[in-house]
Amino acid sequence: MHTNNEVEDFILNGHKYYVPHVSIDCAIFGYHQQQLKLLLIKHAAIDGWCLPGGYIKRTEKLVEAAARNVKERTGVDNLFLQQFKTFGDPGRARFEEFDEERWFKATGVRVTKDCWLIDQTISVGFYAITDFSETVLHVDRMVMSCAWFDIDSLPKLEFDHEEMVKEALHTMRVQLYHYPIGYNMLPEKFTLAEIHALYETLLGKKLDISNFPKKLIALGLLKKLNEKRSIGPHRSPHLYMFDKQAYDNALKEGIVLS
Amino acid sequence: MHTNNEVEDFILNGHKYYVPHVSIDCAIFGYHQQQLKLLLIKHAAIDGWCLPGGYIKRTEKLVEAAARNVKERTGVDNLFLQQFKTFGDPGRARFEEFDEERWFKATGVRVTKDCWLIDQTISVGFYAITDFSETVLHVDRMVMSCAWFDIDSLPKLEFDHEEMVKEALHTMRVQLYHYPIGYNMLPEKFTLAEIHALYETLLGKKLDISNFPKKLIALGLLKKLNEKRSIGPHRSPHLYMFDKQAYDNALKEGIVLS
Repeated sequence: MHTNNEVEDFILNGHKYYVPHVSIDCAIFGYHQQQLKLLLIKHAAIDGWCLPGGYIKRTEKLVEAAARNVKERTGVDNLFLQQFKTFGDPGRARFEEFDEERWFKATGVRVTKDCWLIDQTISVGFYAITDFSETVLHVDRMVMSCAWFDIDSLPKLEFDHEEMVKEALHTMRVQLYHYPIGYNMLPEKFTLAEIHALYETLLGKKLDISNFPKKLIALGLLKKLNEKRSIGPHRSPHLYMFDKQAYDNALKEGIVLS
Repeated sequence: MHTNNEVEDFILNGHKYYVPHVSIDCAIFGYHQQQLKLLLIKHAAIDGWCLPGGYIKRTEKLVEAAARNVKERTGVDNLFLQQFKTFGDPGRARFEEFDEERWFKATGVRVTKDCWLIDQTISVGFYAITDFSETVLHVDRMVMSCAWFDIDSLPKLEFDHEEMVKEALHTMRVQLYHYPIGYNMLPEKFTLAEIHALYETLLGKKLDISNFPKKLIALGLLKKLNEKRSIGPHRSPHLYMFDKQAYDNALKEGIVLS
């Protein structure tokens, strides 16, 4: 949202194009070289960090709304977005903290308590994982800041977003055992040590190096290449790549990795 | 909902007490003696079978709304209800099939297309498992029929409820590996063959009898009792019961059963 007219129309008429009372929030995890980060934003009218999110167009599927929101902030397309939980505790939106003056300053529009944006909202949570080094963050009139934070040193989050992050992280870690990951977080060709480090970072725990990558190979997800990478004297590990067909199939059908 | 006044007030003023645009639907699986069933209902104003569900009071958590709806239909309290997915495809509610005359006949109220009940709705899905032999089904002015159906011979379902059931069953089966079940589906004291049959029925597949129950014991979920049940000449298997503390803890923390 960039122009005054767009902002005003969204505030005054948005309930005609969007489903009122329902929002989406996205926990976008970013991985790069053994670092795990989370994308956070600051709304123009709210003081404090939140998950990026927004409303669902009346013509859109939930996952399409999530993808549109993620693309708006990161430029990243085709992320594997997973719904993890819907949040609807009555107190979650904190209406009592609604600050009419702040909204007016931020938007230039007189927003009152009967505005569709200020009523009770239930939020559908999605998570995704991407390579944060490949994203280009965008802000606009309604989202003033947007940044990657280390997962271990997040700021205080607004609303129920701390619970959302906790649930997203938990679900992501459970689902790592049931869906393949890594396709857009590793170079096209990678070593077993690299994919091992990716899983360890996402899971936040050590995995058996002698055993773990074998399971990925046994599932047919990795193909060994007839190529090595030289990383030092007497050290040139084999390179691997994903078998894209097996990978896509596993995304649909699920795997058991334990 | 039992009186005309209650029905009329719900239709005309329900948006004041309930969050509009959001509903819940519950896939209640019923187990008893190696049979798996699903609870279905027929709305007064809709021809065809659906999952039981309803709206969320503005003062209620999502899971409380689900529990209230399940209790209304089955009389069962304290079910372990699990959110599994939220459904929001734009076409899911099939407004084009809205039948004003049918609604009038069913409710005695002139419901028009601008009624809060007829606008686009996103639905939060919950599933639960209970012992169907212990339930007492209830109908009321808005829900005309309510019955248990064998999971393998369900009737055609309305809206997107076939997709909901598929997703609920899939999630339930994945989660059986991560959460304990059985507490309200087996007698207090049971044989390993009985819990083995429960898991096989819910998973819809054979499990290794020599191995599987050992895993439950290894997780500390089952306690072996100093008691046997006589089921025939030379056949008196040991009885077991759940360790309730370990069970409740596993519900919170999760397990890995594979």
